[in-house]
Amino acid sequence: MDIHEALYTTRAMRRVKPDPIPDDVQARIMDAAIRAPSGGNTQNWAFLLVDDPAIKAKLGPMYRECIDMLWSSIYADRVAAVEADPESPENKQWGSIMKSVDWAAANFETYPLFLFGFAQADSSGGSIFPAIWSAMLAARAEGVGSSLTSVLMLKGDEVPNLLGVPAEEDWRMAACVPMGYPTGKWGVAKRRPVTEVTYRNQWGQAPDFSADSALWP
Amino acid sequence: MDIHEALYTTRAMRRVKPDPIPDDVQARIMDAAIRAPSGGNTQNWAFLLVDDPAIKAKLGPMYRECIDMLWSSIYADRVAAVEADPESPENKQWGSIMKSVDWAAANFETYPLFLFGFAQADSSGGSIFPAIWSAMLAARAEGVGSSLTSVLMLKGDEVPNLLGVPAEEDWRMAACVPMGYPTGKWGVAKRRPVTEVTYRNQWGQAPDFSADSALWP
Repeated sequence: MDIHEALYTTRAMRRVKPDPIPDDVQARIMDAAIRAPSGGNTQNWAFLLVDDPAIKAKLGPMYRECIDMLWSSIYADRVAAVEADPESPENKQWGSIMKSVDWAAANFETYPLFLFGFAQADSSGGSIFPAIWSAMLAARAEGVGSSLTSVLMLKGDEVPNLLGVPAEEDWRMAACVPMGYPTGKWGVAKRRPVTEVTYRNQWGQAPDFSADSALWP
Repeated sequence: MDIHEALYTTRAMRRVKPDPIPDDVQARIMDAAIRAPSGGNTQNWAFLLVDDPAIKAKLGPMYRECIDMLWSSIYADRVAAVEADPESPENKQWGSIMKSVDWAAANFETYPLFLFGFAQADSSGGSIFPAIWSAMLAARAEGVGSSLTSVLMLKGDEVPNLLGVPAEEDWRMAACVPMGYPTGKWGVAKRRPVTEVTYRNQWGQAPDFSADSALWP
């Protein structure tokens, strides 16, 4: 797969089938992930693949609790806005994300695989998220959909404890990535135009290039 | 370019030529970057491309100060170890990173382009580092080398102030990515084997696949 197809079409794929992801596919995903950079190449990272139904059965209720917290706290205004006016363009997009997240919550135990990423001594996230994102891109190349969530951190140490993370070693859970073969189609994710979020030399100054629509394909 | 070639060979490229990176190349890099995910697709990010010699002339001394701080503080033990025994395998690797970083410091003003990434309301880094890493991968596809540094954060608000970042808007500078056409060769970055850093279902448990050497090419 071409790098641009991967970069442009690896959008959040929450609706996936329960079909298992073969071990050799998982190996290729993870082997690509660990080529990512880390500060001083220290590779202070660890990855945990979860496919045991007994563990998934415990993660499901935790995830649903976290999503409930999310909807009723930091995203409460958005939830209310979507309910009040579901047809405005912004609320439509939000409504569709919420629906997709609610699907993930209701079906959490059916994901065939979860990838958890942990980092030590990485306060910025710069030494773990490149690897996580590489895993998602490598998964895309294998036809495996994924999405990135850090919402399980709302449960504090509960998830790390469930996964046997040694408390004395100061590992930070950075991300959980549910994976599976998509039920829907790949497509270019919609984003604010690059020229609106990219400046040149000074904040607010135009970048000197034009890109009214996606430059790929 | 194949996605795997990009994922495996986008290693830190600090030694680059001063040749400018054309605007259309920059546009393609940034347009690919903004397809990355962000929490709730909020895209609370901003990117700043710096190629103005007057700004670079101010960044250079700041970067060198930060590197001096790094060598004499958190990396002091490593610097001492490399000086004491430069030939041990671990110290050799470290010595080579240090040399490359020292080259970057000495030649900071000669980089043709810097990409700065900023995030709002993203404490984990999960909503900015995927985009930064996508930019680096897209740059690789264009033959443009890059490296990721967050060391300039050691100067607090000095760099954001220099770049005109509005103080009242709570933007966090996540990364600085010097870019340019490499003087050296692309190659697969050396990493600890994937089977050493990947567990299955419980911390410390083998992942059930083998990968003694890189699975690509």
